[in-house]
Amino acid sequence: MPGLSEFELIETLLKPLAENAPGAFSLSDDAALLPDAQQGHGYIVTKDALAVGVHMRAEDPPGDMARKALRVNLSDLAAMGAHPVGFFMALCLGQNSDETFLRAFVTGLADDVDIFSAPLMGGDIIRHSGPFTVTITAIGSAPKGEVLRRNEAQTGDSLWVSGTIGDGVLGLMAANGELPSLSQVDQAALIERYRVPVPRLILGAELGGLATACIDISDGLVSDVGHICAASSVGCTIDAASVPLSSAATAVVSSDGLVLPTLLTGGDDYELAFAVRQGAENDVIAISEKVGVPVTRIGTFESGKGVKVFDQNGKAMAFTETGYKH
Amino acid sequence: MPGLSEFELIETLLKPLAENAPGAFSLSDDAALLPDAQQGHGYIVTKDALAVGVHMRAEDPPGDMARKALRVNLSDLAAMGAHPVGFFMALCLGQNSDETFLRAFVTGLADDVDIFSAPLMGGDIIRHSGPFTVTITAIGSAPKGEVLRRNEAQTGDSLWVSGTIGDGVLGLMAANGELPSLSQVDQAALIERYRVPVPRLILGAELGGLATACIDISDGLVSDVGHICAASSVGCTIDAASVPLSSAATAVVSSDGLVLPTLLTGGDDYELAFAVRQGAENDVIAISEKVGVPVTRIGTFESGKGVKVFDQNGKAMAFTETGYKH
Repeated sequence: MPGLSEFELIETLLKPLAENAPGAFSLSDDAALLPDAQQGHGYIVTKDALAVGVHMRAEDPPGDMARKALRVNLSDLAAMGAHPVGFFMALCLGQNSDETFLRAFVTGLADDVDIFSAPLMGGDIIRHSGPFTVTITAIGSAPKGEVLRRNEAQTGDSLWVSGTIGDGVLGLMAANGELPSLSQVDQAALIERYRVPVPRLILGAELGGLATACIDISDGLVSDVGHICAASSVGCTIDAASVPLSSAATAVVSSDGLVLPTLLTGGDDYELAFAVRQGAENDVIAISEKVGVPVTRIGTFESGKGVKVFDQNGKAMAFTETGYKH
Repeated sequence: MPGLSEFELIETLLKPLAENAPGAFSLSDDAALLPDAQQGHGYIVTKDALAVGVHMRAEDPPGDMARKALRVNLSDLAAMGAHPVGFFMALCLGQNSDETFLRAFVTGLADDVDIFSAPLMGGDIIRHSGPFTVTITAIGSAPKGEVLRRNEAQTGDSLWVSGTIGDGVLGLMAANGELPSLSQVDQAALIERYRVPVPRLILGAELGGLATACIDISDGLVSDVGHICAASSVGCTIDAASVPLSSAATAVVSSDGLVLPTLLTGGDDYELAFAVRQGAENDVIAISEKVGVPVTRIGTFESGKGVKVFDQNGKAMAFTETGYKH
């Protein structure tokens, strides 16, 4: 880390990110003290690791790497119906983690600390011979009776998703130059989605106590809905034609219909997929309008097991992979 | 990971480690729910990352790698006066992380989950091109008014340490074959100390509300006492002759007096160094006897700044490095 010692990295760059967390003791101690839980709330904890070359491209802007690392963890909190309290971060610096890289990384992180009111509360910095890796543990808070799980979807519940599906994997393809015929505007929109996902925190919090199961789509729609099915001991059918696509994704599918299975199984969407009891559909639509996040009904839970996807002709679609390998 | 998928690793090996944490939901969800904090207690959180080639030798038994990774985090909890509630773990698997390695790693971890009543509550597993890395976030609980910090040592307070100092760095030297003249028994004892440190949890909890500052010795005695001095705005003198050494360390120093500075600045001891008000010395001795952990007074805090170490002739010792570079 030429030009910037670990001490300077903490004192100069990271300490300001801990300002709004009194229990972080300005990152000076061995550990941090969580604030008292809000009355009737419980703490939710999640931990995700991201490595350059696996979840992030070495060419990605360092600030976006930081934001993605935090946001995929916040997305896990959203899927549980929790709002963020703060986070802990371990950095494994690689050979290319020089001062320029680290300053840009922290600048991006600082933006998200403000946006999500999620202060840095502690962590660790090591150097190793491998690629740059960031591990984040995010702490959230949720009303105790309203924590969203995966295991209570029932036969007859409807399946919904937020936002649009498939932009994450298309963004990776665009960043890798694999969508040359797509307009620059559409390419930029998709790449942004891949690099800086939007955790659905407000929607997730509103779904607490309403949705019967919820997950964030990180591995891919089919795979992640499969996780709900497995936990809830139900099956699910998805109507592919009703899966919401962005205009950029629609443009890609229009020119190459074969890419649709990739969108349904690609990951990195960080939208919420959730189950809703019969009769509660209007409540979901009201919440969607209240928080300004579009939601779409795309399927139905049923007896049996596993996920079946039918195309616009009512024909079962086959997938070579149901999940997304980063 | 030939022969063992990530799913099997979680289902077969890791899930049993989550048995005693209901809020871990058998590792099935996106995140875990912490239990309600005990009345009058707060949650303490710490996060440390360890990489093969940096904090652990590639030749170390995988089970010991797991135990060390957990224990250095528990040692941070001990230094804050907290007892463990559970932990989250992210594994970055490298090329040598095959099934044999992972089974041995988890077997060692399971032992410590039992010993410390610290269930696994969640985490993440990724694969990358770098060395095997494990990041642990440990959650602890401590009475709110008795959380140990680093910043209240005052002039006149005495400096104490638990156990013996320098065994960690000597253990690394022994493991690397750098202490050939030492007996096999002494070598084995030192290597054990390096590979499987003992977090001073019970002592730390008892010192809560009594010690005015506390830290665990990970970077090295001189460096870590320096952290107390910096946080408390005081200086400290250490009497080197009073620093407690194990019989193995004594044997090394007897044959090579030049190694003493290495013991005082070497790291990986995971003993507690703490400050005690004048008049409270007998309370500390009573606690030591109660919990069965030896403690030794080795110095005095004074006005000024930084740490001075005097040898048995009263001469100030000079160190080329005040801390330990892993």
